[in-house]
Amino acid sequence: MSQKPSIPKGTRDFGPSQMAARNYIFDTIRTVFKTYGYAQIETPAMENLSTLLGKYGEEGDKLLYRILNSGDAFAEVDFDRPLAPQVCEKGLRYDLTVPFARFVVQHQGEISFPFKRFQIQPVWRADRPQKGRYREFYQCDVDAIGSRSQLCELELVQIVEKVFSLLDVRVCMKINNRKVLTGLAEVCGFPDKVVDITVAIDKLDKIGLDAVCAELLEKGLTAQAVECLKPVLLLEGSFEDKLESMRKLLASSPEGLKGLDELDELFGLIRAAGVQMPCQMDLSLARGLNYYTGAIFEVKALDWQIGSICGGGRYDNLTGIFGLPDMSGVGVSFGADRIYDVLAGLDKFPESLSSGADLLFANMGRAELEYILPVAAALRSEGVSAEIYPDSSKLKKQFDYADRKGIKFLSICGADEAAAGTVQLKKLSTGEQRGFDKQDIPGMLAFLSGLA
Amino acid sequence: MSQKPSIPKGTRDFGPSQMAARNYIFDTIRTVFKTYGYAQIETPAMENLSTLLGKYGEEGDKLLYRILNSGDAFAEVDFDRPLAPQVCEKGLRYDLTVPFARFVVQHQGEISFPFKRFQIQPVWRADRPQKGRYREFYQCDVDAIGSRSQLCELELVQIVEKVFSLLDVRVCMKINNRKVLTGLAEVCGFPDKVVDITVAIDKLDKIGLDAVCAELLEKGLTAQAVECLKPVLLLEGSFEDKLESMRKLLASSPEGLKGLDELDELFGLIRAAGVQMPCQMDLSLARGLNYYTGAIFEVKALDWQIGSICGGGRYDNLTGIFGLPDMSGVGVSFGADRIYDVLAGLDKFPESLSSGADLLFANMGRAELEYILPVAAALRSEGVSAEIYPDSSKLKKQFDYADRKGIKFLSICGADEAAAGTVQLKKLSTGEQRGFDKQDIPGMLAFLSGLA
Repeated sequence: MSQKPSIPKGTRDFGPSQMAARNYIFDTIRTVFKTYGYAQIETPAMENLSTLLGKYGEEGDKLLYRILNSGDAFAEVDFDRPLAPQVCEKGLRYDLTVPFARFVVQHQGEISFPFKRFQIQPVWRADRPQKGRYREFYQCDVDAIGSRSQLCELELVQIVEKVFSLLDVRVCMKINNRKVLTGLAEVCGFPDKVVDITVAIDKLDKIGLDAVCAELLEKGLTAQAVECLKPVLLLEGSFEDKLESMRKLLASSPEGLKGLDELDELFGLIRAAGVQMPCQMDLSLARGLNYYTGAIFEVKALDWQIGSICGGGRYDNLTGIFGLPDMSGVGVSFGADRIYDVLAGLDKFPESLSSGADLLFANMGRAELEYILPVAAALRSEGVSAEIYPDSSKLKKQFDYADRKGIKFLSICGADEAAAGTVQLKKLSTGEQRGFDKQDIPGMLAFLSGLA
Repeated sequence: MSQKPSIPKGTRDFGPSQMAARNYIFDTIRTVFKTYGYAQIETPAMENLSTLLGKYGEEGDKLLYRILNSGDAFAEVDFDRPLAPQVCEKGLRYDLTVPFARFVVQHQGEISFPFKRFQIQPVWRADRPQKGRYREFYQCDVDAIGSRSQLCELELVQIVEKVFSLLDVRVCMKINNRKVLTGLAEVCGFPDKVVDITVAIDKLDKIGLDAVCAELLEKGLTAQAVECLKPVLLLEGSFEDKLESMRKLLASSPEGLKGLDELDELFGLIRAAGVQMPCQMDLSLARGLNYYTGAIFEVKALDWQIGSICGGGRYDNLTGIFGLPDMSGVGVSFGADRIYDVLAGLDKFPESLSSGADLLFANMGRAELEYILPVAAALRSEGVSAEIYPDSSKLKKQFDYADRKGIKFLSICGADEAAAGTVQLKKLSTGEQRGFDKQDIPGMLAFLSGLA
């Protein structure tokens, strides 16, 4: 009957100390989202497959987890047709963006627009598991929908700055605009090659100017088109200088110029708001090119190499597929797992993070237990996390328990203390010990908090 | 291309105000769990079906959501054998108890026992959806595993008392012990009829003594056996009187007497700890009879009829099936959805619960925006949830937005304020308005918090 227990590949258990560390990240992010007036929502893990299919490309459809219909799923299937669509109507959510779009359309009558929401929930992808890539992982998304104002973009920049400042991680943010990329493809005469052009430009730092030009030719651009793009590859100087060069280059593309205007406005707001985090215009940034229509963001840690730890952008028509057109939104998603790895790698988790109690009362037997129960209750009412060891085991065993759990204070109240009406508290890291009258809860609180 | 969006039957979206109310419940429960030294864990939504199957009875197996294997699930199936087991290896967790048992066994080397854990996560059941019953819902479980001490039971009683005291809901707790039920079945000569006997006894209040006896006879008990059980049905007097009567009745059952000893000890601890919540011994309480082996708990609201809002018990062999025998544990589970309904029904959600910002800065145009950006940033740094309306729309529209979102304070800083270096704050509920120097963040904080 005994089974060796395991969990599915690509999934994880989180024990007490991992939970404390993860909650530190989630709580920090949540707190910042709230100070900007973003409100939390949650959507179900299971969505109708009709909501999910076709939203993530062909590859994404394959990575959706499908849920077998309940009851006898195979009772009335036609075995001559593909079976999966006949036996699965629901799937697990693949990201938080599509469920958010579905939520906005479904509840549009109850929502006050602009709608500023955040969502911190797990998502599931049937991806090949590998280091740092999981089949179940959390996303932390923050989006504002229903306004085209660049102030929304600014708020996201400020939120990113604040989150990583609180987490004590130095980051830089790269900012691009999809309209500029569209404009570039237009002015060089290959409007359908936006992706190829952007991918090639993105390699400039790695492979150099000549190789990028070679790649562009290989992708079918003419020599003339590559020549036209060269100024982008040679872009230098201040933000203003770059903008000036780009305005000349994109002069014939209204879309491209609009993108430059948006970048100009956003960087102006970033300056006005006193953002200290380094923000760079990066015309090669192309993430999520399929659905972004305006700003594109990417955040990297300066002191730890792990790729992007946060990213997002503006999308003008996300809810259109669900029947609500012209609803522009912008958002970013924080990668909790990578942020965890950065904090662990840089040793930035606060020392005070604790998953256990602050104080352990040793269990000296039934009579002593009755003596400490009201003291423990009084301390807990003041917010102290206090355990009483459940069994009157050998003290060595009880001490070991406190030690392994990282409990900071120990109280041993035996018959003498009970007779005297006192409580002994010992700080385990220093050995410092103090006695208190059993009524002196404030005194104990001060000692436990390190104030006395 | 447009789809009318919907979510699967039995699942729910939670909008901002529902989330605020739900988080109030979860935060309260979590805070209490922590003050008793319970540590949070999380397990994956997807478990191997081998972990889940056979743990919830035949009916439970049918209610498991199975996940279609990724890739081409049907590529190598044998169509002559049942298909579901061939195409699904994973399922969604059905409760938090079995994953917890699996967790304890899988991580036993890293765990310090007694292990006190809590877990607040959704579970999924392919149940027929109906009012108050969902296919995806949260459970809040708290368990201590690795100690047989009744102090663990006491802590759960104290936790229940504290949670509902903080939520301002009057409750009573019923307590039974499975060993007493086993003893009753033994002494009347029908040890295999524990469930029938308990179910019948449970109906005493509803159908009366005679009908209960008739039901017992119908279930196959002899007249003599029913006569033997009658003292339980006629049990009266104080806790001590009842215990005394039961000790006589169960004199020939060591198991039954042990159950009475445990009840005696637990009620002694409850008195010693000064628990104020009414706790009743109820020998008809039988929930989860399949796996409880000691204490059984059930909590009901006194002022709102909705059935049990919290329950649990002790189980001596939950981890045995995963290869770790003799690991005794005890726990309770809080029913978040029912607690939500009780709080809503009794109008007990705090008025201060808010899903939106505290303060909205009206958007008066680009120049004014630059003026208020640093003020908003300073207030946010002090924890104020402050929004800036993203567009410089008509003020009426901006006011309506604040009103619909329940934002309490409004700030309109136009050209005059910017020139004077002042900030106007208006409390919307009273119309009270105050002007501050733009540097006077402490003054604004005092006004916003209602202190000045």
